[in-house]
Amino acid sequence: MPTITAATVTDLRFPTSSSLDGSDAMNGDADYSAAYVHLQTDEPGLAGYGFTFTIGRGNDLCVAAAEQRVLPLIGRDVDDVVTDLGGTYRMLQSDSQLRWLGPEKGVIHLALAAVMNAVWDLAARRARKPLWRLLVDMTPEELVDAADLTYLSDALTRDEAIEMLEHLAPTRAARVEELRATGYPCYTTSAGWLGYSDDKLRRLLHEAMDQGYRHVKLKVGADLEDDLRRLAIAREVIGWDVTLMIDANQVWDVPQAIEWVTQLAPFRPLWIEEPTSPDDALGHAAIRRAVAPIGVASGEHGMNRVLFKQMFQAGALDYCQLDSARLGSVNEILAVYLLAKKFDVPVCPHAGGVGLCELVQHLSIFDYVAVSGTLEDRVTEFVDHLHEHFVDPCVVLDGAYRLPAAPGYSAQIHVASLADYAFPDGTYWTRASAEVSVA
Amino acid sequence: MPTITAATVTDLRFPTSSSLDGSDAMNGDADYSAAYVHLQTDEPGLAGYGFTFTIGRGNDLCVAAAEQRVLPLIGRDVDDVVTDLGGTYRMLQSDSQLRWLGPEKGVIHLALAAVMNAVWDLAARRARKPLWRLLVDMTPEELVDAADLTYLSDALTRDEAIEMLEHLAPTRAARVEELRATGYPCYTTSAGWLGYSDDKLRRLLHEAMDQGYRHVKLKVGADLEDDLRRLAIAREVIGWDVTLMIDANQVWDVPQAIEWVTQLAPFRPLWIEEPTSPDDALGHAAIRRAVAPIGVASGEHGMNRVLFKQMFQAGALDYCQLDSARLGSVNEILAVYLLAKKFDVPVCPHAGGVGLCELVQHLSIFDYVAVSGTLEDRVTEFVDHLHEHFVDPCVVLDGAYRLPAAPGYSAQIHVASLADYAFPDGTYWTRASAEVSVA
Repeated sequence: MPTITAATVTDLRFPTSSSLDGSDAMNGDADYSAAYVHLQTDEPGLAGYGFTFTIGRGNDLCVAAAEQRVLPLIGRDVDDVVTDLGGTYRMLQSDSQLRWLGPEKGVIHLALAAVMNAVWDLAARRARKPLWRLLVDMTPEELVDAADLTYLSDALTRDEAIEMLEHLAPTRAARVEELRATGYPCYTTSAGWLGYSDDKLRRLLHEAMDQGYRHVKLKVGADLEDDLRRLAIAREVIGWDVTLMIDANQVWDVPQAIEWVTQLAPFRPLWIEEPTSPDDALGHAAIRRAVAPIGVASGEHGMNRVLFKQMFQAGALDYCQLDSARLGSVNEILAVYLLAKKFDVPVCPHAGGVGLCELVQHLSIFDYVAVSGTLEDRVTEFVDHLHEHFVDPCVVLDGAYRLPAAPGYSAQIHVASLADYAFPDGTYWTRASAEVSVA
Repeated sequence: MPTITAATVTDLRFPTSSSLDGSDAMNGDADYSAAYVHLQTDEPGLAGYGFTFTIGRGNDLCVAAAEQRVLPLIGRDVDDVVTDLGGTYRMLQSDSQLRWLGPEKGVIHLALAAVMNAVWDLAARRARKPLWRLLVDMTPEELVDAADLTYLSDALTRDEAIEMLEHLAPTRAARVEELRATGYPCYTTSAGWLGYSDDKLRRLLHEAMDQGYRHVKLKVGADLEDDLRRLAIAREVIGWDVTLMIDANQVWDVPQAIEWVTQLAPFRPLWIEEPTSPDDALGHAAIRRAVAPIGVASGEHGMNRVLFKQMFQAGALDYCQLDSARLGSVNEILAVYLLAKKFDVPVCPHAGGVGLCELVQHLSIFDYVAVSGTLEDRVTEFVDHLHEHFVDPCVVLDGAYRLPAAPGYSAQIHVASLADYAFPDGTYWTRASAEVSVA
């Protein structure tokens, strides 16, 4: 009977702003960061790892919040915690004083995600399964017990959720075998950051084609002339058979979004991503009606399941891009997948950042096997940055995530990376700080 | 030319959980707290005070966030800061790395509220006016320049906002004189906390009637039988001419809210407050359609102006209860007042907590004088707790807030209160901690 004995939370920051990786119309200088939770147990070799993702300043706030949110787990029996993942989530989430600071949004919710991601990692390691397999091996009732369906019953009842999952349960095994052969399809954003020159854009698009991608995504929204030129370059390189997506990172008001996207329509993008405030379900719905057949995608800043419920009820989304480090871990993500199924909206998770690809591969595999049962209109983001810091990095071949085999949620970071990039005391940051002092 | 030389942020916590003040169906053990910002200048006697309100644990997160958000103000010329309050707000808000942690919600937005509340206090003190007077003396253009209208243009344009304000500008002075005589009407929640016994409830309701209140509010939602008994006591004490409101503090799903409120309908409440998730604009709209003529009120957890825009667009609210320490200070509150005017929804601000009454009196007075021009269906919350800690406490007589006369936003807290209730090093908390150690 192992026990959770301690938890450490590390403020980990990578200096990505120096290369303009991750630059877009809203975020010009992101330092990709993680508030990284390590749950320790008294059983040798058994631990849980999880994180939330931020882009620099304020990562310390998520660390401080995670240090508070994790406290109720210390001293708890591991098996009690991992055999009642719904109860564990509700226990952590029910702190009414912390709830006031959201509720269920912002720093305290990001911190809950970090902690519960570590709990799910621990659960999968304890079961000696990759997370996707842990989920696929759960019954419909077990999955629904783990899901947070609070505030959703006007859109989805518990019975409906179970019925949807039962419908696909008998054929799960066949879809697992199919994915072993094909992988789960992904697209790349690595080519399209706004800070890259035209030459670098062109070169990276060629590389993406060479690597077998059939979807690429470009950032837009800072300057219309630049967008027109960059999209022309993209179509010149990828042709018209490869799918092109565009992403405005929330820079527009609703009328402006409609006008701007209409200007870009000749390049036939599949979707416009984050055209306006991520909180604006009705605004996304208005944009969607106006720019069809271009689709509307959003969700990486979708704060919680109640927002997604309204997005679906309002008919706001063609593509749901939930985020694995912003929602309250698998518990809340399950609820959003079930809602998406009910409303027939494909889920194409947000990824990139630090380790989001490592997490979402598990979620997408689970979705296909147990919830959606289809790959139609589904493609998961992949960004080829920072994977070298992970003990079990995701593997992408021919534009598809391969099935992870190692136990856990693929969330563990190398000890050497922690030593280098812990902020502000890691070797990279102390060296950088010393260089600034000298200069 | 005074300069902002430094800022201190204090973690201030009052042990209100020991008396069950503030207890409701969601929040059983609130320790009313404030992350309190003090902007210092090099001009003797000139400073700015502001805060956000929390209920205990996590107040330290708001303090840490406010310490980061306030940094760009240090070293700035006071007059540059206070003569361009819109620009100051945009400058603080534009930190893209902190923005990722919201955007515009949760801890980082509460911290922005604390800092900008101090800036508005500083602006009013610099002008030697109470905040309401500073606002009333601003032209329609100046007010709209200070307001954050980002993401709102599908519902309200800048020109519409100016036109609405211009319509009432010529008659502002008459309404100020009227309020000098009558005060701004308020209601009391002090009687109705869920943790109070029936006897205490009855006694406090009698006291409220003796003090001239014509509106009282009770907490509901934990147990239906208890609610029926407590509402019967309330009507027995206050009769049927006094207005009764009820508040569920977010405990219900949408269908459950409709069912429960229908059971309480015979007691003819004016409104049901926070019937479900505060994020659920469409859910509130569904409840409102189902429980009419009982009104729906919400907003104390309304995270930002984009949520309120959708609440109004969806027809979700009969009463808008914006919060002066959760929205991004007067800049964002102005936007919500203007939206409310456009959609013809009365604003009845949330108050209570620590110092919220001190803030909202200024807002309600400004609303009547410059935005709404009517008192119909308007009543502002008042809770008689913790005012003794404020240097310029609000004054309520005969169920109405009297016009504040002192310069500023009434946000300054006594130095002795800071010394007693700073957490964890104030004299109250060190004594409490010593007593626990002994016991």
